Amino acid sequence: MKKYGFGVDIGGTTCKIGLFETTGDLAEKWEIPTDTSEEGKNILSDIAASLRGKMAERNIGKDEVEGIGIGLPGPVQPDGSVLLCVNLGWKEKNIPKEMGDLMDGIQVKAENDANVAALGEMWQGGGKGCKSIVMVTLGTGVGGGIIVDGKIVSGAHGAGGEIGHITVNPHESVPCNCGRKGCLEQYCSATGIARLAQEALAQDHEVSVLDKAAGISAKTVFDAYKEQDKLAGQIVEKFARILGKGLSNIACVADPEVFVIGGGVSKAGEVLIQAVNQYYREAAFPSCVHTRFALASLGNDAGMYGCVKLVLE
Amino acid sequence: MKKYGFGVDIGGTTCKIGLFETTGDLAEKWEIPTDTSEEGKNILSDIAASLRGKMAERNIGKDEVEGIGIGLPGPVQPDGSVLLCVNLGWKEKNIPKEMGDLMDGIQVKAENDANVAALGEMWQGGGKGCKSIVMVTLGTGVGGGIIVDGKIVSGAHGAGGEIGHITVNPHESVPCNCGRKGCLEQYCSATGIARLAQEALAQDHEVSVLDKAAGISAKTVFDAYKEQDKLAGQIVEKFARILGKGLSNIACVADPEVFVIGGGVSKAGEVLIQAVNQYYREAAFPSCVHTRFALASLGNDAGMYGCVKLVLE
Repeated sequence: MKKYGFGVDIGGTTCKIGLFETTGDLAEKWEIPTDTSEEGKNILSDIAASLRGKMAERNIGKDEVEGIGIGLPGPVQPDGSVLLCVNLGWKEKNIPKEMGDLMDGIQVKAENDANVAALGEMWQGGGKGCKSIVMVTLGTGVGGGIIVDGKIVSGAHGAGGEIGHITVNPHESVPCNCGRKGCLEQYCSATGIARLAQEALAQDHEVSVLDKAAGISAKTVFDAYKEQDKLAGQIVEKFARILGKGLSNIACVADPEVFVIGGGVSKAGEVLIQAVNQYYREAAFPSCVHTRFALASLGNDAGMYGCVKLVLE
Repeated sequence: MKKYGFGVDIGGTTCKIGLFETTGDLAEKWEIPTDTSEEGKNILSDIAASLRGKMAERNIGKDEVEGIGIGLPGPVQPDGSVLLCVNLGWKEKNIPKEMGDLMDGIQVKAENDANVAALGEMWQGGGKGCKSIVMVTLGTGVGGGIIVDGKIVSGAHGAGGEIGHITVNPHESVPCNCGRKGCLEQYCSATGIARLAQEALAQDHEVSVLDKAAGISAKTVFDAYKEQDKLAGQIVEKFARILGKGLSNIACVADPEVFVIGGGVSKAGEVLIQAVNQYYREAAFPSCVHTRFALASLGNDAGMYGCVKLVLE
């Protein structure tokens, strides 16, 4: 194994770049803007220039770099190419080939960003020491990534780990962004929790600090929950019951060692884990009752970590 | 790769044994009784004697055998050992070690029987040509096996692919064998379909051939369904809706290339696949709508096939 690897997590506005030692230590991280103009034609060359600059600055030779892992905001084919990446303006593109050519043949691999985040958390984050994890990202939506035996489960149609779109409520009348109704994401994302809160506020309820809140977000709800606000308690309970039961079903499929919970909503911390874990245990298949729950610990760097891990296999 | 491999699917009453060419062709199959007396202490030596006998008969040398794969009716640890196998009378036992010693050091691997059946169907059965499948076995219960990239997903607690115990009905009052309520198995197993039929018969309904049936089984129901019996149609529709929706959720986790449907109930054939696929498509996440459905084609030999595939990796 060579000494260094690069992890590059390409987002719609910035690319997060990490120089890692292949032991797993992050040596340095920085960001460059993502130039999505002209169908994103400069994105890879901008990244290549940045990596070359860093190698020159640190006097790192090409032969000291094990590889470059790239995370992309969209579906990625098994060979690392994309057919369409709306967020970057890309149409058909063979990332490992193009980036490899730009970097004198250094090995390049590419994967979906949610999947590399899961891989990163398994390697150096909340799932460290495990080989099989389910990562749940509670953000604007609910994303997921599944790692089995240290490998990403991308799925035959790129839908591996799309756990935000498990149907949890067949009676839902409001459609999800995916066009279906009753998806996990509709209740357990930041948006979903705010919606649960609006619904609770619209019904008869005891006086709550949420009555006077300027705007209701998942954070407002969890802050009130930590202050023992009763209404917030009901909202968190509903959220935790839906997520806990949903994860108990996922355990009957993937049976991970640990569920790693990340994304903005997970900043609520241990109280969130405890609430979800309680409902999970009540619903779980007997052999999976004791599956661990952990908070993600790499935050926005998870993708970068996972990217570099891709090339260390 | 050597020329031969043995697949041994150990059940509670018989061991199914197959001699395979490593190309995937079954050269010969036979059965021996499973002697579960005295904590099953003779099971492995009986099998070893049978394998040795076959090798002598066919003049196959030890160096021509790639390995012996063994399927077991219970949870198997990642190293192929078992902690407890009630159906065979075994307590702690290291199968690869014991069987390897009995067979002059030929490579031995062991796995759970439902998982090897899935692997067998992927290799030479309904999922042939695929690397990622979800196998659904509709028998007395509902079993499952998940193969990702050609590898069995056993799970951290042996519950990988335990899809019969996904909760599909939170309002169920009758408990499942697992102690929980509303599991897929309670509606989609042979027993479950018979129960759906009893419920339908207990309600007001048009005259049905099922009214006069001596006993109601899944077969009776599907036979009546094929004859356009209206009540049977309602029962099959309910079964298919529950299974189709359940599998649509599994697609958001494992996203296989194909769902392979096996077990006794699947003898109903293409009509079953069509009914389930229809409800699956209605419920599926957009990128997984076109996931294929196929009937299992190896029947009771699937486990034997999967066993030998274990040792070809």
